[in-house]
Amino acid sequence: MKVGIIGAGAVGLLYAFYLSNKHDVTIYTRRKEQANAINEKGITLNLGNQQWNENVRAVQFDAGDFEEDILLVAVKQYHLDHVLPHLKKNAEEKIDLLFLQNGMGHINKIRHLPQKNISLGVVEHGALKKDDTTVVHTGVGKTVISSYRGEGERINHCFQMINTNSFPFELFPDWYEMLAKKLVVNAVINPLTALYRVENGELVSNPFFYKSMEQLFHEVISVIDLEDHQHLWKYVIEICKKTGKNRSSMLRDIENSRQTEVEAIMGYLLHEAEVKNRALPLTKFLYESIKGLERKK
Amino acid sequence: MKVGIIGAGAVGLLYAFYLSNKHDVTIYTRRKEQANAINEKGITLNLGNQQWNENVRAVQFDAGDFEEDILLVAVKQYHLDHVLPHLKKNAEEKIDLLFLQNGMGHINKIRHLPQKNISLGVVEHGALKKDDTTVVHTGVGKTVISSYRGEGERINHCFQMINTNSFPFELFPDWYEMLAKKLVVNAVINPLTALYRVENGELVSNPFFYKSMEQLFHEVISVIDLEDHQHLWKYVIEICKKTGKNRSSMLRDIENSRQTEVEAIMGYLLHEAEVKNRALPLTKFLYESIKGLERKK
Repeated sequence: MKVGIIGAGAVGLLYAFYLSNKHDVTIYTRRKEQANAINEKGITLNLGNQQWNENVRAVQFDAGDFEEDILLVAVKQYHLDHVLPHLKKNAEEKIDLLFLQNGMGHINKIRHLPQKNISLGVVEHGALKKDDTTVVHTGVGKTVISSYRGEGERINHCFQMINTNSFPFELFPDWYEMLAKKLVVNAVINPLTALYRVENGELVSNPFFYKSMEQLFHEVISVIDLEDHQHLWKYVIEICKKTGKNRSSMLRDIENSRQTEVEAIMGYLLHEAEVKNRALPLTKFLYESIKGLERKK
Repeated sequence: MKVGIIGAGAVGLLYAFYLSNKHDVTIYTRRKEQANAINEKGITLNLGNQQWNENVRAVQFDAGDFEEDILLVAVKQYHLDHVLPHLKKNAEEKIDLLFLQNGMGHINKIRHLPQKNISLGVVEHGALKKDDTTVVHTGVGKTVISSYRGEGERINHCFQMINTNSFPFELFPDWYEMLAKKLVVNAVINPLTALYRVENGELVSNPFFYKSMEQLFHEVISVIDLEDHQHLWKYVIEICKKTGKNRSSMLRDIENSRQTEVEAIMGYLLHEAEVKNRALPLTKFLYESIKGLERKK
């Protein structure tokens, strides 16, 4: 299958590497130099002590029309506004789209795309971009995919073909539940670890952080349409424990003075709260706090 | 006048030094070694590039009865529970008391003391304890004093006698207003600077921190009986600017893994909120957050 991947950050490189095993992959980069580097060196993946390399075609994003069967959109939520106009301009009904963003801020944006078949994915892998052509697969998780509209068969088949122990995928019947669950986890773990500068596990092992996390959890789920809150709370705790030694992406972004995904996560919740006419004082506070930390001197 | 000062931290040493100029001062220390050191070397004060030394009598706190006319209680709020039983045991109506704690948590505790004359003070000086006998007067402010009950004349006179440019004092007619105003300032500036790890000035210069501070301010004043909120908000901003390069005491406590005064400040507000049956989500969150940071690994 011809697969295009838009975005060559950690996630884009990771998916380009694994999909290249069975598919004809083109990765679309923002910078010309990165495209050149990938065309020259391929993409290198580090997993544990091992290292592999795959040849992958790379093209600078602005270049032109898409000729792929499937496009994976692997840019951060806050870069979507640059990408979506191209998908409209290059409207071809036959292209199936898979969006891999965190949060839920993209839902309101992709609704207006002309493509018939759109799926959503949740990335449960840990990945770090080491340089323009190298990605470290820091945590083996899975890709969870759910159809947003139309048919998801071609995308599911594409992932089925590369389904391995180190890159498994799973189908989920309800896209809202899939994204909302991830959103709750991100909304609770990310801002707190970034604010406290702690690894995920300390949110559970420190009894005071545990309480503040619980307080935030209850506020967050009040605007999310998910049932069985008790089960969800247990799931959050489980994630904190399982990823105990991890530094969340938001913490790493703050530590490296990069833009975070706070808009896609807390911003989305505040938008929902406004629509539902509810107050989310903690979410509002954390939204401003993370924004402030992003530009802290 | 015979003046006793209980507590030989930064504030205790600072007041012992300045009061020694005109009064017969005894400083009560928790540790025997500190009392010995002060008896041997006196108290040294650094102010700007200058340095002075005063001979001061020091006694370990447990030693016995008080023979002073006036006692200044200069221990942190969270050490009051060790001190107050001694003041009851050594009940002598003739001793006038001056409490110099931050926050308002001490009010409910001193109410039950037997002494007739009790005053409250707010310390607007910056002071750092350099070692057991040396204090650095980092910021010249003033002492604001208000009578809590009985007659405050003797205490006022005691401070009037040492009233100088570098150690001025001021009387304030309403103790509640005096403490509440300081409490609001502390409740807003301290936890945020400690959480964000920023100097006071950045709460004003960073537009996102400014918003989170404003949000916290509105929550805090909702349980404090003070009028003219607009004027008070301007006062908070002014303090942030005037002390722009300062690291708040709570921030320094967190940085040095020491206990903070969060109980006296946010704990008091939460107690008031409970009595008044109000929810203070941000205050609650910050209370847990600071407690968590105190014991962060």
